[in-house]
Amino acid sequence: MPVFLNTRDSDFETQFTTLLGAKREDSPDVDAVVAGIIADVRARGDAAVLELTEKFDRLTLTPETLAFSAEEIDAAVAQVPEAEAEALSLAARRIRAYHERQMPHDESWTDATGARLGWRWGPVDAAGLYVPGGLASYPSSVLMNAIPAQVAGVKRLAICAPTPDGVANPLVLLAARLAGVDTIYRIGGAQAVAAMAYGTETIAPVDKITGPGNAFVAAAKRRVFGKVGIDMIAGPSEILVIADGDNDPDWIAVDLLSQAEHDESAQSILITDDAEFGAAVARAVDARLETLERRAIAGPSWRDYGAVITVADLDEAAALSDRIAPEHLELCVADPVALSEKITHAGAIFLGQWTPEAIGDYIGGPNHVLPTARSARFSSGLSVMDFLKRTTLAQMTPEALRAIGPAAETLAKSESLEAHGLSVRARLDRLNR
Amino acid sequence: MPVFLNTRDSDFETQFTTLLGAKREDSPDVDAVVAGIIADVRARGDAAVLELTEKFDRLTLTPETLAFSAEEIDAAVAQVPEAEAEALSLAARRIRAYHERQMPHDESWTDATGARLGWRWGPVDAAGLYVPGGLASYPSSVLMNAIPAQVAGVKRLAICAPTPDGVANPLVLLAARLAGVDTIYRIGGAQAVAAMAYGTETIAPVDKITGPGNAFVAAAKRRVFGKVGIDMIAGPSEILVIADGDNDPDWIAVDLLSQAEHDESAQSILITDDAEFGAAVARAVDARLETLERRAIAGPSWRDYGAVITVADLDEAAALSDRIAPEHLELCVADPVALSEKITHAGAIFLGQWTPEAIGDYIGGPNHVLPTARSARFSSGLSVMDFLKRTTLAQMTPEALRAIGPAAETLAKSESLEAHGLSVRARLDRLNR
Repeated sequence: MPVFLNTRDSDFETQFTTLLGAKREDSPDVDAVVAGIIADVRARGDAAVLELTEKFDRLTLTPETLAFSAEEIDAAVAQVPEAEAEALSLAARRIRAYHERQMPHDESWTDATGARLGWRWGPVDAAGLYVPGGLASYPSSVLMNAIPAQVAGVKRLAICAPTPDGVANPLVLLAARLAGVDTIYRIGGAQAVAAMAYGTETIAPVDKITGPGNAFVAAAKRRVFGKVGIDMIAGPSEILVIADGDNDPDWIAVDLLSQAEHDESAQSILITDDAEFGAAVARAVDARLETLERRAIAGPSWRDYGAVITVADLDEAAALSDRIAPEHLELCVADPVALSEKITHAGAIFLGQWTPEAIGDYIGGPNHVLPTARSARFSSGLSVMDFLKRTTLAQMTPEALRAIGPAAETLAKSESLEAHGLSVRARLDRLNR
Repeated sequence: MPVFLNTRDSDFETQFTTLLGAKREDSPDVDAVVAGIIADVRARGDAAVLELTEKFDRLTLTPETLAFSAEEIDAAVAQVPEAEAEALSLAARRIRAYHERQMPHDESWTDATGARLGWRWGPVDAAGLYVPGGLASYPSSVLMNAIPAQVAGVKRLAICAPTPDGVANPLVLLAARLAGVDTIYRIGGAQAVAAMAYGTETIAPVDKITGPGNAFVAAAKRRVFGKVGIDMIAGPSEILVIADGDNDPDWIAVDLLSQAEHDESAQSILITDDAEFGAAVARAVDARLETLERRAIAGPSWRDYGAVITVADLDEAAALSDRIAPEHLELCVADPVALSEKITHAGAIFLGQWTPEAIGDYIGGPNHVLPTARSARFSSGLSVMDFLKRTTLAQMTPEALRAIGPAAETLAKSESLEAHGLSVRARLDRLNR
């Protein structure tokens, strides 16, 4: 049973705080193991990667077979049924079109002193995308990670995708090809992250690593942060649906289950201003759970972390939503645009009852890599910005230096940084000669 | 003596790689200590913060005196000499003008299917800025951290600035006031970072923590990353100057020393196409080091990490610069704009001989919080973007769902995510009725 809360209940605040604070993630302390794996890959390169792949994925590789060959990719891609290939291709086109609009512009201007100022954007040279193996091997995630990198202009794109027992997902290989990925290594875990960050004899190091992964991958990304850039440390998925009574309870039920089926630690919450409707949705969830293929995952998620919250009005709903700062937010209300304007913290908003969150997972265009665990308070979904960096530019003229140099010298002296001041003073003295 | 390299030397590649790989940072393993401090602050709140401040800063505070009072700030600000106050005020205006241009725009459009797509930017609710105490207590850093947050629209800004033995820097307090900071806590170290991330009885938690600090502060920021956003883990400062022979050696010498004086681990490198000029700059550095106030810091930095590299031409210089990916890059050449276009990786570029790097530290306008330790390969200086986050928006119409929904359903099935597909199918079935 999910929890049923009502903002009118006297203990609502306590219960809501408990809900917010629920620790949904197993965080096994894998950091020591991961530190050892990273040190091993740095010290022994390919040899370490091959041994660890043998150990964890039961797969014997050589430096020559670390990456899929073009023929292997061709053969796998040829197995993909046409309908799936077309759907993936449509998704790739839409995701690309959305992300192309994110490209920021360079700026350059001259200020009143004659100083020329501005900045310039450029892509990272190389990016490495982690794609989990097994159940969570999602071709859609390949598109969502690789296309922004490609749009940003990243010259070299590599994927690490473990293939436990040698089993590869043909759709993942097709997605990689659609997204312009050059090289796909069949390795995973902390060893893959270490290899991408530090390089080995066979694997060229990259500058930025993105993509989801298990606790080992997350710990490895945290450890290599600084040596390379990383995207974020993602937690279990979440959805918050705000729905008024004028919705089909079954639609909202499957929307809630579409996150619950990801992971037993996923969280699905409904906020409604109609208690009757909330109860109807809960019944519809139960009905769907009787037959849902992944009921063994979605059931525990809904039971342990699901919630139905009844509010007095939609303003209350917006305020609670901001405290949750959900990864995904569906607004199934009469005027979803008006309600969205009251929302400050959310990774992605899906407006109106014709926009199930699953559209955003696959084909809407926006990225599905989104901030979890309340991090929408301070971070954003993946975008082309993650694969770009900015260089600031400044050019003084003698006149500009004369105008603002003395203040710089004053501040340098006040910070006891004499050479800073001298570097300005030497030039001002020349001008005053 | 700094190292003198020449790209014509047969062992240049080995020597350059050694220079690139030089470990300049003491990384004492403070992580266990920091983990303990964070746990203590989470468990005991104010009491822990007060005890740790007594221990490390030799300062006895109470919950009431954790923050400076308005009267204390008034009194300190009144001590600032007028020339310094005016210089700081000019710096604040110029930094604000530059950063105001960084504000990104919201986007919204309708695609060919009728789907409405876009995104929206918004500020984090609260930001906490760390300002080191002692030697590295720089008012300019207060401006560089706080003004982008203020421009982004952050509603609540707090500073943590330790005051060892109770000694505060009046200019830091003035800078905080100029930048619109509400509250200044006189605490530092890992305990300050923990207090800002998790909150205590007196200190309200923030959503984003930025600012430089020692090894304890850096380790604490790394640990609270995820609970809150952080800017970056900054290392010792660096400058690379590319200069042709048509420069005053003394100007370049003081430019190199302006980073060397920051820290014994700072690094200053000159690349020139004129070996004679390189030797003249080295002599000018030695001459300046005889009298420089901070020669005890700048001397060891130049001796241990300084380098003068002679190249055959400026194209070679640009290629080496990209391998260094410097935090600060000065281009003192005849056509600095043309040379800058050959540079891909740099935190900030200073164009031409009238633009000493120190201008950028104080008053140019661009931010002086920049990526160190080769991280300009994948990251950018601080900006208003660090205090903003993006919410993506999608709104389908029945027609749009009919156009793209079936592909989403196909992909959901291919990923064995049945409920994802059902959430689309339920709506398509209604349309087809």
